[in-house]
Amino acid sequence: MSRIIRVGGAQLGPLQKSEDRKIAIDRMISLLGQAHADDCQLVVFPELALTTFFPRWNMDDAREIDSYFESEMPNEATKPLFDRAKEHGVAISFGYAEIAEENGVRHHYNTSIIVDKTGHIVGKYRKTHLPGHGEFDPERAFQHLEKKYFEVGNTGFRVWRFMDGIMGMCICNDRRWPETYRVMGLQGVEMVLLGFNTPAANSQRTDEPPGLRNFHNDLSVQAGAYQNGTWVVAIAKAGTEDGHELLGGSAIVHPSGQIVARAKTLDDELIVADCDLDECNFYKETIFDFDRHRRIEHYGLITEQTGVVRPD
Amino acid sequence: MSRIIRVGGAQLGPLQKSEDRKIAIDRMISLLGQAHADDCQLVVFPELALTTFFPRWNMDDAREIDSYFESEMPNEATKPLFDRAKEHGVAISFGYAEIAEENGVRHHYNTSIIVDKTGHIVGKYRKTHLPGHGEFDPERAFQHLEKKYFEVGNTGFRVWRFMDGIMGMCICNDRRWPETYRVMGLQGVEMVLLGFNTPAANSQRTDEPPGLRNFHNDLSVQAGAYQNGTWVVAIAKAGTEDGHELLGGSAIVHPSGQIVARAKTLDDELIVADCDLDECNFYKETIFDFDRHRRIEHYGLITEQTGVVRPD
Repeated sequence: MSRIIRVGGAQLGPLQKSEDRKIAIDRMISLLGQAHADDCQLVVFPELALTTFFPRWNMDDAREIDSYFESEMPNEATKPLFDRAKEHGVAISFGYAEIAEENGVRHHYNTSIIVDKTGHIVGKYRKTHLPGHGEFDPERAFQHLEKKYFEVGNTGFRVWRFMDGIMGMCICNDRRWPETYRVMGLQGVEMVLLGFNTPAANSQRTDEPPGLRNFHNDLSVQAGAYQNGTWVVAIAKAGTEDGHELLGGSAIVHPSGQIVARAKTLDDELIVADCDLDECNFYKETIFDFDRHRRIEHYGLITEQTGVVRPD
Repeated sequence: MSRIIRVGGAQLGPLQKSEDRKIAIDRMISLLGQAHADDCQLVVFPELALTTFFPRWNMDDAREIDSYFESEMPNEATKPLFDRAKEHGVAISFGYAEIAEENGVRHHYNTSIIVDKTGHIVGKYRKTHLPGHGEFDPERAFQHLEKKYFEVGNTGFRVWRFMDGIMGMCICNDRRWPETYRVMGLQGVEMVLLGFNTPAANSQRTDEPPGLRNFHNDLSVQAGAYQNGTWVVAIAKAGTEDGHELLGGSAIVHPSGQIVARAKTLDDELIVADCDLDECNFYKETIFDFDRHRRIEHYGLITEQTGVVRPD
């Protein structure tokens, strides 16, 4: 039985603060249509796909903040996307800001979902590694207030049996942390779906050489793929939002760590690859056969200790 | 106070099975002299620097096996290297096959040491991630019997305060495992000294495209450097040993993950870089400020579980 999935990576260009959900959804539906015409079975959209990357704005008004969040999924704005995906028989994944009511308490998460080809949400992930800071920081060239607007996700890095494979999700800054991939790798993950919104400048080092942030993005996703023998589908929201540039460089990464499809623009752009999940096997069965090679008795600090403890 | 260390990476070309320790040590002393002339303060040699990469040969005679090991360090063969390093006032690190007597039991390890500029051994590491296999494997294009000749190291990934910085070691296949760097990163490591002997062909996939193994080597050490904000000095034994090719590509890697010095040959070759340990700080204090960003409550599987457990 073949386990080749034709995957579409649907990079989004910028969404301005003034643009509403309908503009985003119309563009996503257009990319979905292209992907369907190209026989894609799964289309991956970026993190926080429905709005501008709002953590760059310092807001204190709860109503203004909540205006960037979704309290239902699907909802009126996103239903046309769900409907079109179902009509095409295509599975999708995308990120959004989620308000969740849990045990009578409202929580704010940075969330991604997997929607199967019949329109059902079959997987939900809430971002674990929130970058940036929790309060307005006058030292920075621009703000990155994810720690203000979101709580740390409570899902952990679980995986799902989906489309004859094992799939997981992570979001943006999660991709820089090898723990992200390893926890999924230990559950046999074969494809990681990953959306990101990454400022093209470093807010704390504005003289950083050009290209370094693209290099760090590639390095992180390629290492995660190789070291766990998994596909990684890493999709950006790119381009200039209200004067703030976001990285592009969306990529589909083979279990060898090699990039097999790559976006060329900073705008709406579909990249496509036939991803054979069985190509994970060689890595998982040889050099990264965890059972034969890992030595957990020497890894204790990784889970015992959050921060650095230097020797005397 | 400046914390710039001028580091020499002393790649070694091949050592044939017929060549004795004196040949290796003479070549190491020659590279050490070059490094001293270039004002290096620390010189890093490869894994198993004193002999051919013997795990490619299937041996059953204990005396023959032990002939590749050192039961004292320094010993008669290596003392001239220690003496010359002390004379130059240069610290060195190199790997060798170690026989250790512990509680009356003889153990075989794949070991690296740090020797300070006065000739004292101040750090010892025994390889954790032994690649390959423990018995002759007729399916392979060639043998890689590290699991036969060595026991898993019992040191773990500790670090040492050395030369005004925090240094750690790992060996060859350890570099492919993100746990290696992370355990040292959690102890504040600023420079990882790493030797390797890596076959240029994959014994289990002889049609692997050229360049892929160099790519995997680079990817692993660059990701480890970046994700922990540490220098990595990754030094090969390279070239053709009795018809078996070893990778070169020795490199000194900046905490940004970028390669700042790189070997061009597959032979004895010195690469040099001025490594400012303070350049680790930016990464450790911002994007990889572990204390602010790591979420150990979601990393449990990494230390609970050695192998893969797939979901139902």
